[in-house]
Amino acid sequence: MRSDRALRFAADNRARFLAELEHFLRYPSISSQPDRRNDAKRCATWLAKHLKAVGMPRVRVVQTRGNPIVFASRHRGRCYPTVLIYGHYDVLPGEPIQEWRTPPFEPTLIGNKLFARGASDDKGQLFIHIKAVESYLATEGSLPVNVKFLFEGGEEIGSPDLNRFVIRNRKALQADAAVISDTRMIGPNRPAISYAQRGGLRANLEIIGSDHDLHSGNFGGTVLNPAQALCEMIAKMHDDRGRVAIPGFYTDVRGWSEAEREFMDRNGPSDEEILNDAGVDLEWGERGFTAYERTTIRPALTINSLTSGHQGTGGKSIIPARATAKLSFRLVPNQQPAEVGRLFRDYITKLTPQQVRSSVRTFAPIAPAILDRKHPAITAAVTAYQKSFGNKPVFIRSGGSIPVARTFQEQLGIPVALMGFGLPEDNIHAPNENLDLSNFGKGIETSIWYLALAANLPQVNPARDSKLHSHHFGH
Amino acid sequence: MRSDRALRFAADNRARFLAELEHFLRYPSISSQPDRRNDAKRCATWLAKHLKAVGMPRVRVVQTRGNPIVFASRHRGRCYPTVLIYGHYDVLPGEPIQEWRTPPFEPTLIGNKLFARGASDDKGQLFIHIKAVESYLATEGSLPVNVKFLFEGGEEIGSPDLNRFVIRNRKALQADAAVISDTRMIGPNRPAISYAQRGGLRANLEIIGSDHDLHSGNFGGTVLNPAQALCEMIAKMHDDRGRVAIPGFYTDVRGWSEAEREFMDRNGPSDEEILNDAGVDLEWGERGFTAYERTTIRPALTINSLTSGHQGTGGKSIIPARATAKLSFRLVPNQQPAEVGRLFRDYITKLTPQQVRSSVRTFAPIAPAILDRKHPAITAAVTAYQKSFGNKPVFIRSGGSIPVARTFQEQLGIPVALMGFGLPEDNIHAPNENLDLSNFGKGIETSIWYLALAANLPQVNPARDSKLHSHHFGH
Repeated sequence: MRSDRALRFAADNRARFLAELEHFLRYPSISSQPDRRNDAKRCATWLAKHLKAVGMPRVRVVQTRGNPIVFASRHRGRCYPTVLIYGHYDVLPGEPIQEWRTPPFEPTLIGNKLFARGASDDKGQLFIHIKAVESYLATEGSLPVNVKFLFEGGEEIGSPDLNRFVIRNRKALQADAAVISDTRMIGPNRPAISYAQRGGLRANLEIIGSDHDLHSGNFGGTVLNPAQALCEMIAKMHDDRGRVAIPGFYTDVRGWSEAEREFMDRNGPSDEEILNDAGVDLEWGERGFTAYERTTIRPALTINSLTSGHQGTGGKSIIPARATAKLSFRLVPNQQPAEVGRLFRDYITKLTPQQVRSSVRTFAPIAPAILDRKHPAITAAVTAYQKSFGNKPVFIRSGGSIPVARTFQEQLGIPVALMGFGLPEDNIHAPNENLDLSNFGKGIETSIWYLALAANLPQVNPARDSKLHSHHFGH
Repeated sequence: MRSDRALRFAADNRARFLAELEHFLRYPSISSQPDRRNDAKRCATWLAKHLKAVGMPRVRVVQTRGNPIVFASRHRGRCYPTVLIYGHYDVLPGEPIQEWRTPPFEPTLIGNKLFARGASDDKGQLFIHIKAVESYLATEGSLPVNVKFLFEGGEEIGSPDLNRFVIRNRKALQADAAVISDTRMIGPNRPAISYAQRGGLRANLEIIGSDHDLHSGNFGGTVLNPAQALCEMIAKMHDDRGRVAIPGFYTDVRGWSEAEREFMDRNGPSDEEILNDAGVDLEWGERGFTAYERTTIRPALTINSLTSGHQGTGGKSIIPARATAKLSFRLVPNQQPAEVGRLFRDYITKLTPQQVRSSVRTFAPIAPAILDRKHPAITAAVTAYQKSFGNKPVFIRSGGSIPVARTFQEQLGIPVALMGFGLPEDNIHAPNENLDLSNFGKGIETSIWYLALAANLPQVNPARDSKLHSHHFGH
């Protein structure tokens, strides 16, 4: 199939595509806040209608215990390979709102960048593929391959429903390759394909003292303060060499050959680039590894939040009744989230002073994932990038976690092309998240090329057009 | 002057007094929240009107940079001693609201206890004296002594305006004794007079990393987390023997004779009582001292709050850009707040890792205060308690700070009778603050007796009825 008319159509319709993306970004589809469920639902409904409008004949909004899953497919025929394209329409909260230059859910174009929560992670990136499909259908009336879209609404809270959905719908989701665009390029015009992602595990830790706040004058000096106890326990989570101090934490961490570390060194970002992206001057962390290695082949434990006592303006002279920390682990082969959770709970039990109680909840386990860089589904992605960006992508490891990548590999037995169109300066998970419009445009071109190249992928199984096994899903 | 008719009047009007107190408690006069300034102003206006209504001929609402000061006086004559009665109408915030059984600013009577923020600290206690004065004026048409009421609206934020007001109005405030009811009894029917209060100093500590939150996947393990750095620094504020670890912190702490410590042991609460009040099973703190000593003659450093990262439900997988702790020192003779502030800042500078910045603000300094237990103004208080409660009060030290007690001693040169009517179980500074109604009634009786007994106090200076020097105060 020709792709030149699709490419031209995409170029000619850029302004409309952008306006549609802005509409998509206006939904505050925040998965971590229960009171945003209706917003997420409205967002899913809009997305489904939009998929129908661009020419996907079968679109389903599948209810789950969390936010709905939107599934759409277009079958060309048994002899064509099938590409499964995944994205997530849920986003993180906008907080701290006051640090945004423009409101997070009012998309604003400043120069060549579109500012909004979700612009890069992941609404903007998943929208790229919808627009590529639309461009084919508007010009050719069909697609080079069978296409299945799978868009979820729970990625930012660990995809609690997706795993179950994929397991129950293995047949309907059967494909020859999966594409996920939820990662970053190295820099402008420097595309990248992520071939490894860290796994993860989240933990909430609460320290409980009295059943009510105490006056710090009356009791200061005689009662153990849960806020102080929490700090003292967290201070024992790392040693003075920047390593996680939980006993046994590194036991299952895989070492890598010199060849692989050299490959990483040649292709990955430098220490300076990583620190520059982070906006800090000095590095920190485990000795003996580069910053790139520390964020990809080495595990990490991060304190995501601390909460204790009076929040907001003013102060209260109290010994708070309780103190909470939210933490997240980033795990690497061959660490198992369940085992890390056990080690963490044991360590917390050991560290908890007898004067207070501690409570630990671990959740959202994600196994680390790694891909074969030589698979045809991956080399097709390399070519597609080269055609649109003019540069070959580099192979990089990601520090973050993409739970679904691991799920697709395990449950569907297919390779996953992680084709990121984000930039390091997109501020994902932070105030002033944005998407570079030239990446939006080139991303659509890349996706158009990829679909054309995917027509030559080896077929794992003859393509089917099975129905979703989802009527009672999640009820 | 006879006090029996005043006592009977107070008993007969208890229901009305209570209804008036409930009205007073409905104002959310929270001094630590700037957006409550209007509520505090309305509360001060109501208080002034009420003082006028009960028969105080001169009432002034004095504007300050913060909340207004309400001053009222009734002069009997040059040959009568003058009693200055202090209280504060400002309160702490009601948060955490969800932990209150009844809304903090909707006073609710449950059994014999009136639940509301400020019921015990300090609206309920200052109101006791207003009702004692009303009872005299309604029955005798005059008071046994000259009375001056001084009610401020900034005690919970360290009385920033009061010191200046007192210094500028030394003449108008001249008195022979001061009465402050802002402390607690040992237990029901066990009155107490506080003869020492700890001083204080508050500190806000902020740790700053990047200028924005970072994705914990992309950067976890390679950038120093301000939340982690804050915890590690706070963990170094105490040593493993429960002592404050700031170098030089104990240098100026005064030791006490065995006789004084035995006096404290006989009169003060037991370790068990203090832990019971706190609602905890096990003690914590500096070794070699009782819980009572640790909260009165030994200094303390308390973490009042921790804030970092996403607050509220859900979570964000970030390395927070900043982390904040609010701390408060409780100081004892002969520690100087300014010197402690300097030691703290030096220590923070020393502890701050090079990868982050720290910022310290110290404020609200209060010097520790101690009183002569033998002064006639104090022995009059002992007798007044004995007549109303049937029990002699014990002399106790307070762990908290009453900035104005120190100011009155220093600036006006007068003894301060700290006659508390609160109970340990009043939950001041906590959810479900309440006032025991039998203490409200007996408090009014005690105040009636005290005013009668104060007629025999030695006069420091002939009483004057000077005007406030306050027309342009604070502008």
